[in-house]
Amino acid sequence: MTRFLSDNVTSACPEVMKAIFEANSGDANSYGDDDWSQRLGGRVSEVFEKEVLVFPVASGTASNALALACLTPTYGKVFCHQLSHINTDECNAPEFFSGGAKLVPIEGALGKIRPDDLAQAIRGAGNVHAAQPACVSIAQSCEAGTLYQVGEIAALAEVAKAQGLSFHMDGARFANGLVGLGVSPAEMTWRAGVDVLSLGGTKNGCLAAEAIVFFRPELAEAMPFLRKRAGHLLSKMRFISAQLEAYLSDDVWLRNARQANDMAARLSQGLAAIEGVSLAYPIQANEIFVELPDWAVSRLEKAGYEVNDQELDEQAPPRFVTAWNTQEDQIDSFIAALSADGA
Amino acid sequence: MTRFLSDNVTSACPEVMKAIFEANSGDANSYGDDDWSQRLGGRVSEVFEKEVLVFPVASGTASNALALACLTPTYGKVFCHQLSHINTDECNAPEFFSGGAKLVPIEGALGKIRPDDLAQAIRGAGNVHAAQPACVSIAQSCEAGTLYQVGEIAALAEVAKAQGLSFHMDGARFANGLVGLGVSPAEMTWRAGVDVLSLGGTKNGCLAAEAIVFFRPELAEAMPFLRKRAGHLLSKMRFISAQLEAYLSDDVWLRNARQANDMAARLSQGLAAIEGVSLAYPIQANEIFVELPDWAVSRLEKAGYEVNDQELDEQAPPRFVTAWNTQEDQIDSFIAALSADGA
Amino acid sequence: MTRFLSDNVTSACPEVMKAIFEANSGDANSYGDDDWSQRLGGRVSEVFEKEVLVFPVASGTASNALALACLTPTYGKVFCHQLSHINTDECNAPEFFSGGAKLVPIEGALGKIRPDDLAQAIRGAGNVHAAQPACVSIAQSCEAGTLYQVGEIAALAEVAKAQGLSFHMDGARFANGLVGLGVSPAEMTWRAGVDVLSLGGTKNGCLAAEAIVFFRPELAEAMPFLRKRAGHLLSKMRFISAQLEAYLSDDVWLRNARQANDMAARLSQGLAAIEGVSLAYPIQANEIFVELPDWAVSRLEKAGYEVNDQELDEQAPPRFVTAWNTQEDQIDSFIAALSADGA
Amino acid sequence: MTRFLSDNVTSACPEVMKAIFEANSGDANSYGDDDWSQRLGGRVSEVFEKEVLVFPVASGTASNALALACLTPTYGKVFCHQLSHINTDECNAPEFFSGGAKLVPIEGALGKIRPDDLAQAIRGAGNVHAAQPACVSIAQSCEAGTLYQVGEIAALAEVAKAQGLSFHMDGARFANGLVGLGVSPAEMTWRAGVDVLSLGGTKNGCLAAEAIVFFRPELAEAMPFLRKRAGHLLSKMRFISAQLEAYLSDDVWLRNARQANDMAARLSQGLAAIEGVSLAYPIQANEIFVELPDWAVSRLEKAGYEVNDQELDEQAPPRFVTAWNTQEDQIDSFIAALSADGA
Repeated sequence: MTRFLSDNVTSACPEVMKAIFEANSGDANSYGDDDWSQRLGGRVSEVFEKEVLVFPVASGTASNALALACLTPTYGKVFCHQLSHINTDECNAPEFFSGGAKLVPIEGALGKIRPDDLAQAIRGAGNVHAAQPACVSIAQSCEAGTLYQVGEIAALAEVAKAQGLSFHMDGARFANGLVGLGVSPAEMTWRAGVDVLSLGGTKNGCLAAEAIVFFRPELAEAMPFLRKRAGHLLSKMRFISAQLEAYLSDDVWLRNARQANDMAARLSQGLAAIEGVSLAYPIQANEIFVELPDWAVSRLEKAGYEVNDQELDEQAPPRFVTAWNTQEDQIDSFIAALSADGA
Repeated sequence: MTRFLSDNVTSACPEVMKAIFEANSGDANSYGDDDWSQRLGGRVSEVFEKEVLVFPVASGTASNALALACLTPTYGKVFCHQLSHINTDECNAPEFFSGGAKLVPIEGALGKIRPDDLAQAIRGAGNVHAAQPACVSIAQSCEAGTLYQVGEIAALAEVAKAQGLSFHMDGARFANGLVGLGVSPAEMTWRAGVDVLSLGGTKNGCLAAEAIVFFRPELAEAMPFLRKRAGHLLSKMRFISAQLEAYLSDDVWLRNARQANDMAARLSQGLAAIEGVSLAYPIQANEIFVELPDWAVSRLEKAGYEVNDQELDEQAPPRFVTAWNTQEDQIDSFIAALSADGA
Repeated sequence: MTRFLSDNVTSACPEVMKAIFEANSGDANSYGDDDWSQRLGGRVSEVFEKEVLVFPVASGTASNALALACLTPTYGKVFCHQLSHINTDECNAPEFFSGGAKLVPIEGALGKIRPDDLAQAIRGAGNVHAAQPACVSIAQSCEAGTLYQVGEIAALAEVAKAQGLSFHMDGARFANGLVGLGVSPAEMTWRAGVDVLSLGGTKNGCLAAEAIVFFRPELAEAMPFLRKRAGHLLSKMRFISAQLEAYLSDDVWLRNARQANDMAARLSQGLAAIEGVSLAYPIQANEIFVELPDWAVSRLEKAGYEVNDQELDEQAPPRFVTAWNTQEDQIDSFIAALSADGA
Repeated sequence: MTRFLSDNVTSACPEVMKAIFEANSGDANSYGDDDWSQRLGGRVSEVFEKEVLVFPVASGTASNALALACLTPTYGKVFCHQLSHINTDECNAPEFFSGGAKLVPIEGALGKIRPDDLAQAIRGAGNVHAAQPACVSIAQSCEAGTLYQVGEIAALAEVAKAQGLSFHMDGARFANGLVGLGVSPAEMTWRAGVDVLSLGGTKNGCLAAEAIVFFRPELAEAMPFLRKRAGHLLSKMRFISAQLEAYLSDDVWLRNARQANDMAARLSQGLAAIEGVSLAYPIQANEIFVELPDWAVSRLEKAGYEVNDQELDEQAPPRFVTAWNTQEDQIDSFIAALSADGA
């Protein structure tokens, strides 16, 4: 039974599993000196229409924290949304990898940072008492399940660049954002000013595969050593690279994301039609935050669904997440459980 | 000419200088194994009416950051006011010394944290994705120049203790707070729930002397090593300890603080009497934040005073600080400059 | 073609691949709250005949560095062999994860530390100027491909324990050691004094799976947070746990290791029979270090084998490694290439 | 009574104390923006015959560790003598400040590294598994109390530079080395290839004053922030700078060092004349290592002298240290105690 708890509870998609199996033939050089890893840079460069440097890792936390460690000195500041995953859900990984940089949380409606608020927050450059402004990090799709429009990304990047800061995107749900906006990978990243992208695969059909993508290769100088030092240079790297190669080929990632987004739309429509239930934010990707009255929580729990308990943020409404393999009948069962008479 | 920029621009007081000179006689064991340092624990214990452990250091940043490093694991959270010195003016020192802990900034009027807001902010204990709530740090006097009442300290400590957190006080201007409240050192610290105090001397008459005071010695286990590892175990420690001993003897620290506070009162009265000028916060210690119209800034600058440019916080009103050696005529000259006709 | 460069160039064994595929069915709770991960502790406890705590990770470097981070404070010392992997091949990962602990390299014949040398090296406890002795780490099998006898392990552990240090074993090739000695997992670890084991799977048939095994659970208190903070708590952890479960079931790990060791024996016998070629160390597991005259290097390279260039240690003889899937005919081809007339 | 335990047990010299007192007049800008600190750069540049950048701090450990943190990345290696202070006596400060760099200990007679051994030790550049060679650090005078000749320094620097490494000198006893060699500050540093010098004052007449001197200013970019972040940017910095200014003026530092060295010569001559007592190393500065028979230790202890117990290095012979204020009669009393009949 699908409970819509997160997209990281799903299995891996057939194309990715097939790639893992095919990669499991014979010896291959270790630590990324294999054919799969060697091909991956070309594949990603093609997808993003730009020569990029790619560093595969096995977890999203590593992907974000390693990227940020390349962009900020130990005495630096990373500007991010108050609810951002890097600030609330990674147990100080960015601080650890960067050697003690400070995350500066910025409030903002719909999980998004506004350019004015960012400009206001960036202070103290050159002042030896202040941690030094170093980079900005946004998530796409973001923590409220909403999307930055391309123009919004560009506006934030412009603020960052004007102050000499670099610009990072946490793309744990990058494909969902891409499909949601209907733009190209290039448009949503480097053309809008993104310097480094943490490109997620795990939540959208991979088994465990993320890629750190540098649109400005000169920022990646320390990365090979930082990745090794952190235990994220896997010896049998071919198995990560093979996942990513399959994921980014034949539109697998887009197809998976489209299914997730479509099911989120269906789920949200069902929810919105129920009296007393209301959507907390616009539905733009595959996460749905919803205001539920007590009777609705009871019905869902009785039917076996779990409603998040908001441990980390009391104000946060319950969240339901669809995934690459969510099916219409699963949505319909959920809505039916919630709509049931005589609960 | 005194410009009231900060209390750290002052010279050291005669009693402290005398102690340094007297300590400069003959050989003495190094690294704190000297007579002055050995006596210091007793002196501080007497002052605080409790057996304490004392670790002298030469800077306030070290005093705060070392204390916090004893109270939080690398994956921990320190709860503090958004404007606190540890959060805004120490260039990531707390993050550095703690190995990457996260400072969680909390807003609050008059530079103070309210217990409800603290209780609301402490979340995620036991949740492996969340940095773990570890300690609370307040400043007394605080960043707005205001004071926590003893009951307010106790209320915050109670919130902290109820969640298993320890409680730290940044006492860079501890004596000013003490004199301002008119209570005993014990009442303002451990009796109200403070576990560790960073006791300042430098701003109030010392040359360079701060003391980390542990009211719960079991929290200090790692401190000797952390202090050495950070280069803050001075070889000729006697010169730091001698300062602190003189500072805490014969009411030197209280007399110095009283003079500073009295002069702040005089300055604030003078300011409040000028039409168009208003005090931003109540004056409770030796810092004065004041709303100045443009003509007032011009007059002061013409007379040679410097008005802070609020580099780190645009909203912050200009600040003037009195010190242990501020004299009445200095205050009067300042007020005269501001009140001058024909500016 | 197998080139005997390392056991980490191999594919994963069928049992492990089957487990991955079977784990890929339906949703499962993330971050180790899945059935596979929940079962794993029991499986490992059974194998080691003791209730243990197990933390799966995806890389050997992470497994070692996380274990050491639990055993040493930031101001601590880790005693290890000069040639140990943690000292020479992990790009400062132990220093990173521990927050700056010092690795103290100890020389010793055959890649092994002698108890007397260890006892001599452990100094400075309680001396605030000295980094504090915290733990001892050995590898089994070790960097010279040799094995510590159970009594040798116990003797080192005794030295460590007598000084209050904990004892860690880098078991990247643990199964090869086990088969080489012909003892039980319990005998080679906790019964001999090992507190924490980094148990390798990747080199011996897994795709990417290692387990940190705590024989003294009280040492693991910080581990959940350290693992998460380092990005090594994978969201789809079931896929790591499933590998380990299959690996440790039905003697897969022992059978794989036996094959590797047997092939190493065959290879070493072939090598020793060639005039001018000599084994550098006794062959006790699956690594072979061999002194090769120039003509031998030429012949091997001409036949397509790669001879290590000893970049990190000029004195080190070339190394060849057999693995779980090495076949007799591969050995025989290698020996034939080396023995060839008229090369 | 002088016990010759170390030169850090001494008082400060009159010139330095006078400078502190004179600096204690009126207000002065804080954090190094004062007249004394502003003048210091010029003074040091004059002394070293080169435009340098100078960062005063209060402790030698901070001076070394901050310098090294500018010269090595977190994944770097610092090559140093096995007995060097940075390796044995700073409780992991270099590891802490650098964020986890590795100190690679090199053996060498008389406390000195030989160029061949250094060249042999520098390995692994560009190899992602190896911590990256980053800098070389030597002490002058060194841990055996001996001196590198200028040519020896240049030879080591040449090895370092040929591999792209920077070169640091721990000059805790720099003046003693200078006087011992009879060369100029420039000759013993940048002309021989030194990039950064940790210039000691505390052991040779200061109260607490050290200076980090950059001969290549481009290496100092991060230093202001690293110093602040470590709590080593003192607010009343004028008191450190004033010490250094006085110390480096009117030959105070050289005169102090000459006295110390002269007394060491006198002490060593006295020791060498006693049958059964022998000098362990040549006496070239102000430290004397001496092989003492048991009866000699007994006599000294009976007379109130303390003989080091070699806690950190069993093989190390006892050490006696003379200082800027050691007097001939103190030497003579010591020798007399040791020579006494009927002990």
